[in-house]
Amino acid sequence: MRELRVIPLPAVGVVQSGDDLTDLLVESLANAALSLHDRDLVIVTSKVVSKSEDRVVQFDGTDRHKDELIKGESRRILRRRGPLRITETHHGFVNANAGIDLSNTAPGTAVLLPKDPDRSARRIRADIRRRFGVDVAVIITDTFGRVWRQGVTDVALGSAGIKPVLDLRGTPDATGRILEVTEVAIADEIAGAANLVLGKDQGTPFAIVRGLDDSYFGSGSVGEDLVRPPNEDLFR
Amino acid sequence: MRELRVIPLPAVGVVQSGDDLTDLLVESLANAALSLHDRDLVIVTSKVVSKSEDRVVQFDGTDRHKDELIKGESRRILRRRGPLRITETHHGFVNANAGIDLSNTAPGTAVLLPKDPDRSARRIRADIRRRFGVDVAVIITDTFGRVWRQGVTDVALGSAGIKPVLDLRGTPDATGRILEVTEVAIADEIAGAANLVLGKDQGTPFAIVRGLDDSYFGSGSVGEDLVRPPNEDLFR
Repeated sequence: MRELRVIPLPAVGVVQSGDDLTDLLVESLANAALSLHDRDLVIVTSKVVSKSEDRVVQFDGTDRHKDELIKGESRRILRRRGPLRITETHHGFVNANAGIDLSNTAPGTAVLLPKDPDRSARRIRADIRRRFGVDVAVIITDTFGRVWRQGVTDVALGSAGIKPVLDLRGTPDATGRILEVTEVAIADEIAGAANLVLGKDQGTPFAIVRGLDDSYFGSGSVGEDLVRPPNEDLFR
Repeated sequence: MRELRVIPLPAVGVVQSGDDLTDLLVESLANAALSLHDRDLVIVTSKVVSKSEDRVVQFDGTDRHKDELIKGESRRILRRRGPLRITETHHGFVNANAGIDLSNTAPGTAVLLPKDPDRSARRIRADIRRRFGVDVAVIITDTFGRVWRQGVTDVALGSAGIKPVLDLRGTPDATGRILEVTEVAIADEIAGAANLVLGKDQGTPFAIVRGLDDSYFGSGSVGEDLVRPPNEDLFR
């Protein structure tokens, strides 16, 4: 039986447009006296990815401007309540206010989600391989609400090198009874696990998850494997 | 920065009605040469809780009987598609087929969810304190689907000794901008983390989560803190 370890890395400085996240990761690992190994998984919170990819926009703080920003990032607005919009983003994510960070940002600015988080994850993974010579997986995380449960959890926004959904369906049940759904959204479970060590400190965008089962590694993307197509959705 | 460890315990034998889960935990810990410490969190999968609490019922394998069992466990059926029912259980959980396990069970039987998983968690926690003299938290886990994302994840069905939802809302944003929701469903994130080490082996009902932040421990229950009241739900 293999133990899983979720290791937060030390905080890095404020990330700016054009910053190389792998440089920051190098610095953070050095400060922790840690090195990466094959089959580690590197967690990166979406906010630093957005900032490094220049997804910071001017925001005048008005409701009108907020609605405009949300509309620009969304395919559809599914529900409205007070200041809250439940949106379907251009990526296909269903989330609150299109995932736009309107607080905890520099005054007069808002932070949009990365344009293509799976691509961002693939790029970070390739950079890590080039810099460290190791084969890791990468998950970019963001915080989403849920319909029927209180509180938010971190989920995978983009991934590389890991199967976001693990198919545990074996042979059909010999008795002919209903086969339980056993496609496990491991990328979301990993993202949530990382939030347990990162959640309290906004300055800590990186964590390492070590000890994942070998079967978890492989190809796939959040966009293709985790986002539910609208036509399969019973509640949209 | 504190590292989180998620430690699966060795498999135990088949659990029967009336079995003392703490006896099984003692055996499993001994086999792993591990002991419990204050502020460990013990994960117990709901299936062994159900079995020990005699929540196993006869099931003839027919659709008619399946629907009857689901109805008996539900307040409402929210959606139907093929053999799938999206249900609101008597606990208030929204899940598939009222959480009834119709496969992976002994032939001719089905396993219902525990009647009061928070009470079960409190009882297991008290038993552990009595037997080991340590103050741990307990989460009983089950596997739920999500509306807008593919795949299932493990969530907390019952809890004791931990705040299921952690309130990270600080002082209001000085600029008057929208305050982000920061009530984090840590119990669900912990349940999901445990599934990463337990998911592949049905015979392994226990895990230890070690290294959780001190602020996570406290009172609360899944029923009161994590279940969203229907009148706050935008999608029922």
